[in-house]
Amino acid sequence: MENSRPNDTPLVTSIIHAASSELSPISNAGNGRQIMKLVINGDSHTQAHLGQVITHYLASLQPHRQRFLGYPTNEEFNYEALAPLLHLHLNNAGDPFHGSSFTLNSTSFEVSVLDWFANLWDIEKNEYWGYVTTGGTEGNLHGLLLGREQFPDGILYASQDSHYSVFKIARMYRMQCIKVSSLISGQIDCHHLKALLLANKHKPAIINLNIGTTMKGAVDDIDLVIKTLHETGFSRDRFYIHCDGALFGIMLPFLKSGGPKITFKKPIGSITISGHKFLGCPIPCGVVIARLNYINALSRDIGYIASRDATITGSRSGHAPIFLWYNLQKKGIMGIKNEVENCIRNARYLKDQLGDAGIGAMLNEFSNTVVFEKPLDDEFVSRWSLACNGNIAHVVVMQHVTIQMLDSFVAELVHNRSIWFQQDGIRKSLCIADDVGAVNCSCALHKANMDIQSNNYALQQIKQNV
Amino acid sequence: MENSRPNDTPLVTSIIHAASSELSPISNAGNGRQIMKLVINGDSHTQAHLGQVITHYLASLQPHRQRFLGYPTNEEFNYEALAPLLHLHLNNAGDPFHGSSFTLNSTSFEVSVLDWFANLWDIEKNEYWGYVTTGGTEGNLHGLLLGREQFPDGILYASQDSHYSVFKIARMYRMQCIKVSSLISGQIDCHHLKALLLANKHKPAIINLNIGTTMKGAVDDIDLVIKTLHETGFSRDRFYIHCDGALFGIMLPFLKSGGPKITFKKPIGSITISGHKFLGCPIPCGVVIARLNYINALSRDIGYIASRDATITGSRSGHAPIFLWYNLQKKGIMGIKNEVENCIRNARYLKDQLGDAGIGAMLNEFSNTVVFEKPLDDEFVSRWSLACNGNIAHVVVMQHVTIQMLDSFVAELVHNRSIWFQQDGIRKSLCIADDVGAVNCSCALHKANMDIQSNNYALQQIKQNV
Repeated sequence: MENSRPNDTPLVTSIIHAASSELSPISNAGNGRQIMKLVINGDSHTQAHLGQVITHYLASLQPHRQRFLGYPTNEEFNYEALAPLLHLHLNNAGDPFHGSSFTLNSTSFEVSVLDWFANLWDIEKNEYWGYVTTGGTEGNLHGLLLGREQFPDGILYASQDSHYSVFKIARMYRMQCIKVSSLISGQIDCHHLKALLLANKHKPAIINLNIGTTMKGAVDDIDLVIKTLHETGFSRDRFYIHCDGALFGIMLPFLKSGGPKITFKKPIGSITISGHKFLGCPIPCGVVIARLNYINALSRDIGYIASRDATITGSRSGHAPIFLWYNLQKKGIMGIKNEVENCIRNARYLKDQLGDAGIGAMLNEFSNTVVFEKPLDDEFVSRWSLACNGNIAHVVVMQHVTIQMLDSFVAELVHNRSIWFQQDGIRKSLCIADDVGAVNCSCALHKANMDIQSNNYALQQIKQNV
Repeated sequence: MENSRPNDTPLVTSIIHAASSELSPISNAGNGRQIMKLVINGDSHTQAHLGQVITHYLASLQPHRQRFLGYPTNEEFNYEALAPLLHLHLNNAGDPFHGSSFTLNSTSFEVSVLDWFANLWDIEKNEYWGYVTTGGTEGNLHGLLLGREQFPDGILYASQDSHYSVFKIARMYRMQCIKVSSLISGQIDCHHLKALLLANKHKPAIINLNIGTTMKGAVDDIDLVIKTLHETGFSRDRFYIHCDGALFGIMLPFLKSGGPKITFKKPIGSITISGHKFLGCPIPCGVVIARLNYINALSRDIGYIASRDATITGSRSGHAPIFLWYNLQKKGIMGIKNEVENCIRNARYLKDQLGDAGIGAMLNEFSNTVVFEKPLDDEFVSRWSLACNGNIAHVVVMQHVTIQMLDSFVAELVHNRSIWFQQDGIRKSLCIADDVGAVNCSCALHKANMDIQSNNYALQQIKQNV
């Protein structure tokens, strides 16, 4: 596929165009005020003038904010108290545990955040190393590099439901990478993994484990993966497991209903999560925690880099650790638990509402990601900021997603479907059984199942209310 | 070298300890108020409580801010008008030119910033691609990946004065990397480069060119490098040049005194600069601009990645492009020119002051980085946030560095040297001729030269004042 860009990018002026119709002060032609474009022409502009553009831009985002359903980012936070930090460039270049002559740093906050995560994942302070990253991809870049440096000729195994960054990284690192099938749930298929491991017994295994896949929110079965490694003769010194916990890695430990346990008491090498997903943060960031002994190997091996730089990006945000620290301190454990439960409960609500409306949907047991047929209209997809992949779309029920938003969404989807299907007489619900399982599919073929389910559900509701 | 971390990290509580002696409200023991630690214990804390910690933290940074001389980050900016942006997570995931269903983005601002840089470096809108990165390292990760994908068996040539990330990246990417000698100035030694190219004619060349080296601020001679490639038989289709312009890449075009021209009219593939260095930005960020045809090759080759992701990090800050846009709009071309000239002028002032005080120092013609002997006392180094390498240290004269700061610095350095040298009877000025050249060295052996220079300088001053 070719990347290209238009000669003159319409995006550049789109905000101002939107503003000119909706928000007049800056752009009201004829009142003698100059319409300010985003194009940078080299003139100097006043703070007041630029502030107006920002105000308009923020206003233009509001409608999107009110229908923001498709991405696993938490848009419900308040960092007002941190605004004074905007006056400084803070930089945690290098190793957070060793300080730096870049004295305008926030490594104290960073270490505090790292210790919290180390504790969450059961690893002693003197046995781990980690840092606050620029996001999930950097966490994967770091974890998989540790794996590769440990096993230079190792094969990377990742399920087909892994985040695309994993395959990008394999290419960047020139690692042999084998894609493993996924189950309908989105979990790694350990039967397939077993066959692949047996066929490649001569090379160490580097496993990317998904703690919440991107599209279906499936949590790979860590115990079964470890069992599979043992059964195929991979001893502890011949495999490395990196856990990509982008969204769900931090939600999982706080589930009321239990769920699989991700911990360094199991033979894993590294875990990463995104900071801007569940926790919520203005800028993308994340946390990676790894066993210290792997870092030592990395440092020894990469002789060229400065003594204490075992990070990917070198210069690192000093603000991100403070956002995370503030967030964790403000929420407290109880706050996190409540938010997790709320997301899970609302996700179940959405799944039920869709089911009641005859729309097939899937929700994994340990997940806040509801998967359903991809809406037929791109405008609808964009209006609700849905993320799609092939025949399916998903809603990730985050903290800012209210019951009211979900109700509006379902009502609008139901209404639009009737129009879409009317326009296209033959086509009814798409069959997405291959993606979500026959039991969750509402196509003509699988609808009977849905009806039975639906009836059962209605019956249950009646019983509960009696 | 072993990475390790203390069992209980003293850093975690250092701010609060500092605060307890200097800034009493939170930590004044005995008044019944709890001393708040940075450690996250799982309780929930109020915004007011946390806000106090932030206030103390910011106060603890002020002394560092007032003596921040060693790093090329601009600490003189005002983004007050952007504080409302802290209420949203913005994400420019993917390709800035193609939009995204992640509707809470700032790609319009990003494209505007990219167009400005493309114009600065003479490349047409339909011939370039680029994005706002997380900093200089990601810019290098991107540029060097383009080079490697263009020439999978190419050899990376980088001068020994290149940023450490370049060598780290070579290792990450499993690229053959040859270190080229540098001249005293810090520029790449083209005689050595020539010999290396001749010895490796069978493999394409990927050149990392420094537009301002990290330690000495030396601008590699781009024309001489291109001439060297031609002379050694490397035709245009057998080399790739990536320009690492971290700090000086954006200053160079605005020098009153001219200087070498970095432009896409010359056969280069990519340029990157850091956004938090000259421009000034709270968070690390940067810009990379590359020829579009290289991006197309990258996209074709990496089949796995999502259609429009040719970036390293995937999820990308939506705030960083707005910071850059705001900064460029506020400064305007004249503002940038004035700031560049001011930095250069103040750097010359520092160099002269050091010279007058008998302290050998080097300042490249096109640079704001003053290099001198590494101070003997680590406390002094830390007090002024100096960056050191081997026998040398440097001051990077950025926008926040005033004449008053420089005067205080020189006075304190002179005073401390007299103490250091008194304590160590034998030792006088370190010989740093190998690092800065005999003419800039003030050791006993080379001092005679300094004295002559010093006298000439005094004479000049008298003449000017007459």
